[in-house]
Amino acid sequence: MEKIKVGLLGLGTVGTGVVRIIERHQDDLQRQIGCQIEVAKILVKNIEKDRTVEVSKDRITTDPDEIIYDDEIQIVIEVMGGIEEARDYILRSLDQGKHIVTANKNLMATHGREIIKKADEKKCDVFYEASVAGGIPIIRPLVESFSSDRIHKIMGIINGTTNFILTKMSEEGVLFEDVLKEAQALGYAEADPTADVGGLDAAYKIAILATLGFHADVDINDVSVEGITKISKQDVQYAKQLGYEIKLLGIAERDDERISLSVQPTMVKKSHMLASVQGAYNAVYVYGEAVGETMFYGPGAGEMPTATSVVADLVAVAKDMKLGVNGLRESRKLSEKNMKSENEIFSKYFVLVHVEDEVGVMAQIAQQFASCGISIDAVIQQPKNDKTFTEIMITTYLTSKANINQVIRNFNMMKAVRKVASVYRMED
Amino acid sequence: MEKIKVGLLGLGTVGTGVVRIIERHQDDLQRQIGCQIEVAKILVKNIEKDRTVEVSKDRITTDPDEIIYDDEIQIVIEVMGGIEEARDYILRSLDQGKHIVTANKNLMATHGREIIKKADEKKCDVFYEASVAGGIPIIRPLVESFSSDRIHKIMGIINGTTNFILTKMSEEGVLFEDVLKEAQALGYAEADPTADVGGLDAAYKIAILATLGFHADVDINDVSVEGITKISKQDVQYAKQLGYEIKLLGIAERDDERISLSVQPTMVKKSHMLASVQGAYNAVYVYGEAVGETMFYGPGAGEMPTATSVVADLVAVAKDMKLGVNGLRESRKLSEKNMKSENEIFSKYFVLVHVEDEVGVMAQIAQQFASCGISIDAVIQQPKNDKTFTEIMITTYLTSKANINQVIRNFNMMKAVRKVASVYRMED
Repeated sequence: MEKIKVGLLGLGTVGTGVVRIIERHQDDLQRQIGCQIEVAKILVKNIEKDRTVEVSKDRITTDPDEIIYDDEIQIVIEVMGGIEEARDYILRSLDQGKHIVTANKNLMATHGREIIKKADEKKCDVFYEASVAGGIPIIRPLVESFSSDRIHKIMGIINGTTNFILTKMSEEGVLFEDVLKEAQALGYAEADPTADVGGLDAAYKIAILATLGFHADVDINDVSVEGITKISKQDVQYAKQLGYEIKLLGIAERDDERISLSVQPTMVKKSHMLASVQGAYNAVYVYGEAVGETMFYGPGAGEMPTATSVVADLVAVAKDMKLGVNGLRESRKLSEKNMKSENEIFSKYFVLVHVEDEVGVMAQIAQQFASCGISIDAVIQQPKNDKTFTEIMITTYLTSKANINQVIRNFNMMKAVRKVASVYRMED
Repeated sequence: MEKIKVGLLGLGTVGTGVVRIIERHQDDLQRQIGCQIEVAKILVKNIEKDRTVEVSKDRITTDPDEIIYDDEIQIVIEVMGGIEEARDYILRSLDQGKHIVTANKNLMATHGREIIKKADEKKCDVFYEASVAGGIPIIRPLVESFSSDRIHKIMGIINGTTNFILTKMSEEGVLFEDVLKEAQALGYAEADPTADVGGLDAAYKIAILATLGFHADVDINDVSVEGITKISKQDVQYAKQLGYEIKLLGIAERDDERISLSVQPTMVKKSHMLASVQGAYNAVYVYGEAVGETMFYGPGAGEMPTATSVVADLVAVAKDMKLGVNGLRESRKLSEKNMKSENEIFSKYFVLVHVEDEVGVMAQIAQQFASCGISIDAVIQQPKNDKTFTEIMITTYLTSKANINQVIRNFNMMKAVRKVASVYRMED
């Protein structure tokens, strides 16, 4: 091979970084691959747009077919985002025998199976390290480094926007709405922040991690999702009082072959490594039967970190091409999914209830936990101050999600309970 | 292939774990490799010894040639430790065309080049993920995931024994000698702890990480080494006062092509992720030009974590065998080493001096820093209490190692200075 030609779908933030790295590190890349890499053609929406990276006009096109049906292009890098168009272009590129590198979590968490099946048929590589946690190498370690182990749990801070917001709320005691505005002004949050703060972005990523870590045929629809919009200043303060930080975690658990997947704000004990992850950084914690506790930390987004992962995948494809082993590296057989019911999902919980200031209320609250079979770890009645009601914080021992849901339903029917103000999963 | 036969050199802690994982996860391994893996022969020192894993007598031998010259054995796993014998067995195994998996940091940091050269000649794989930071996948990410980036800095807590000791000293305010005894009683430290507390073990590991991260032909002799035996209770307290934790770090730095390698107790700012690494855990921080800050955290030693890495390497060899690409995966060309002089190694420093309680001493101290071209960040004169001398703590801005060494030599010649009690590199 004298030169490997690459087609790039998309020239936004990540695409720009990819062009930059391939140009800047051409010597290093050549040393590893043994030949030159050239970004031959780039699909864009608007040819005239000003760009921060120099690309000659003849390399830019608005017609995807100029990449898909160019026989000289052997590898397609998809960094345009979105689902339907990206899926179409990738499937047609695979039909043409082109290898795929993508950073598209939404696509891989919804149509990953279809894309990988087609790639296997065509003996093509499909790599997507950048789709989860940007610059952190997590997919390759999950697949290769833990190949000899059985992974039981994956917990990730896999959305930088929400971790930036939660870090600010914890450090400065400010309101969710106010930090969101600041995050938007700084470019850490989108104008429409729904996918981030609603937890959907994290849900795509935990679905991908669980597929790889558990070899299970799960997708985005298997993830129960709760965002961070309801977290109050007080919740953050109470968490701190107890020695915890509130983090939005994607959690994937497996016992025997039973799996549960969720995204939710979680109180994480301060001594846990995940509690130290600040600002827009990401981290993925992996618990394996033999290896025990590990964690992978780094930038979860951004032009250059994400582009680093994309180009590392590109190098992997190029090496496979040299060895003639594309599409043969992994056994991608997935076992059928076998999801846990709420009776099987166990955790510790934090519950905050607002109750009337009456004799015997505490006993009633405690009785409800007992009747649902939940053991209480600690109870704190907060000073009433100027409120017209009393606040009771309860932390539990391990209990099922079904039990916690039951006790909350019971509270909501009690005359002495004004409302269940907050419920958090706790991780020590 | 119906079955892959493996020879195991050594049945100590890690070897036992390897046998256990291969037996326990046989189904998972077969699914990935497509055939059975069998530990056919095991080299031990004493056939009669009681073991925690069941192995039939006919699988055990005291003669390495029964493994090296057995044509049915295709992969040799070396977990016996030590340098000379291990080197001999591995080189002879390579001569017989056998692939190598080793957990031996001492060997790879001293004779790695020779072993890899022979492997390249013989088209054999040599993998050694377990040699650094036990269960943490760090070698594969360094080589593969950052292949597109330029790594500038690697800092590792890569010795569990010393991190256990330093964590105890920090949390409980106890003396080095006392914690060492406790660590020995708990099995966290060897009866002869010299290699751990003297920093040599960490030096082997940072030499391996630097070779891979910088593609540079460095070895153990290029590492400047200082251990933890001189750290006082007071040093730990003063570090805390300033918002730092003392950690034993292996540090590898590269600017352009100039490299420095060291192991030394370092004051790490509490907000740095490395400062949160507690007890016997390990972590490796990697700074890449494009990716920025990343960190890999997990168990640095122990039977099952280390064995996980060994068996993951075994799976990688087996996959390469299936694809017929052993020994071809990496470009292992190393550039010549180009070590920095002390004039080029920059850092912030903490210096503690004991001085006579005289008029004008502080001015003399400050003058010495100025005359060596070192800018002072902060100076704290401690209350004298019942001491017969005065303690002055100085923290500096970035300065060269040469400058710091010069100022210390100057202090040692000053009448007003009783002694330079401590000098620490600082990392924010």
